[in-house]
Amino acid sequence: MKNDEMLERIHVILVGVTHPGNIGAAARAMKTMGLSHLRLVQPKHFPSADATARAAGADDLLANAQVFDTFEESLQDCHLIMGTSARRRRISWPTLTPKQCADKVLTCPGKVAIVFGREQSGLTNEELDLCHFLVQISSSPTFSSLNLAAAVQILAYELRCGIETHHDDLKMNREPASAEAMAQFYQHLEQTLIDIGFLDPKNPRQLKRHLHRFFNRIQLLKPEVNIFRGIFTATQEYQKSKEKS
Amino acid sequence: MKNDEMLERIHVILVGVTHPGNIGAAARAMKTMGLSHLRLVQPKHFPSADATARAAGADDLLANAQVFDTFEESLQDCHLIMGTSARRRRISWPTLTPKQCADKVLTCPGKVAIVFGREQSGLTNEELDLCHFLVQISSSPTFSSLNLAAAVQILAYELRCGIETHHDDLKMNREPASAEAMAQFYQHLEQTLIDIGFLDPKNPRQLKRHLHRFFNRIQLLKPEVNIFRGIFTATQEYQKSKEKS
Repeated sequence: MKNDEMLERIHVILVGVTHPGNIGAAARAMKTMGLSHLRLVQPKHFPSADATARAAGADDLLANAQVFDTFEESLQDCHLIMGTSARRRRISWPTLTPKQCADKVLTCPGKVAIVFGREQSGLTNEELDLCHFLVQISSSPTFSSLNLAAAVQILAYELRCGIETHHDDLKMNREPASAEAMAQFYQHLEQTLIDIGFLDPKNPRQLKRHLHRFFNRIQLLKPEVNIFRGIFTATQEYQKSKEKS
Repeated sequence: MKNDEMLERIHVILVGVTHPGNIGAAARAMKTMGLSHLRLVQPKHFPSADATARAAGADDLLANAQVFDTFEESLQDCHLIMGTSARRRRISWPTLTPKQCADKVLTCPGKVAIVFGREQSGLTNEELDLCHFLVQISSSPTFSSLNLAAAVQILAYELRCGIETHHDDLKMNREPASAEAMAQFYQHLEQTLIDIGFLDPKNPRQLKRHLHRFFNRIQLLKPEVNIFRGIFTATQEYQKSKEKS
């Protein structure tokens, strides 16, 4: 999928914005990072000269913005819904960082909504119940008063970083290994470690956990899996040739 | 070093700001992420009611802001100087992403300056010559008009992310391996691959590059280096025991 197509599927939804200037600033934040679809739920003032002034060249996003009476309507065609929060909530929603959010959004094949709440009070619990994930932006424990457009900027920035990483990966031919290839990799690794007497098959847990944690921390690329499996095979074949002799 | 101490060493320098509202918004962006030291070089209007209004609670940063007549003076006590740019320049300055910038800043033991230029024209080439690195914020190729406070927000956000990763690492006892330990690791890896006949010592380049690229992509942790070296030793000892028998 091309970069433009990936970003085309993303809708930024602002719920209950009080200050129209923030709508304009959010539109500018979106456009700098390549996002273009803005939806507004019950904005207090819109359209507005303040919004246009703060958009500073992103007024096409304002002209094309869709306005909704209810939050539910604004979400109707979306397959993945991300709710954002700058505050630390004691909650049970599954929580993502902005970077984790970008990873999920960019690999979702359908339309995605990224939802931002009111300037003062954010999203209500009922609104969060309609979201699949809660995205929490890290902030200072003593001052977490993130401006609405600043929050949009951070999420949009992480999406752009994700797009560029994806683009670089394609260009450099850095295709990640498939889940199936990784399962075979782990099996081969384990057998090799048993063969050389490093892994005790009766008590493998602690070591296996360390190794899985290590290889899961990075995404192994296809050529890397091939190199490692070549090393495992060389180790095993060396051993067999010695056993025969 | 504690989180607060790490952020205490960082000074945000705004050069030649035209709109005082942007100074206030930048102060707010800084404070949400835990930064507190603001320096201004030749601001057009300061102090200003617009700045205070947009600071929205970060007015302590404005009250403590230092104002300088020249850029050079504002940098005098700083050991590492990062210049920022939202535009794509055809230039020869070493360029970092915001994340790479945060990694460098947070590991620098001295005072750090992160410098932002004028709203319209950014930093001049002469000003960039005083910077050690140029930080480029990714943006849409067709609309890279990032607001000044938005740029400050992104850099400050990456610093906060870096701090929290660092904090988690300390808590989880995830100490990265030292450069010396890594050099020994590579030597041991290479010898083991030669011993099992996987690496041809006469023609090692291509494979060594792949392996270095792989292990450099992640930062190996101390316990992981120990596990891998244990595996190398087990492989070598196995081989020796077979050779003797």
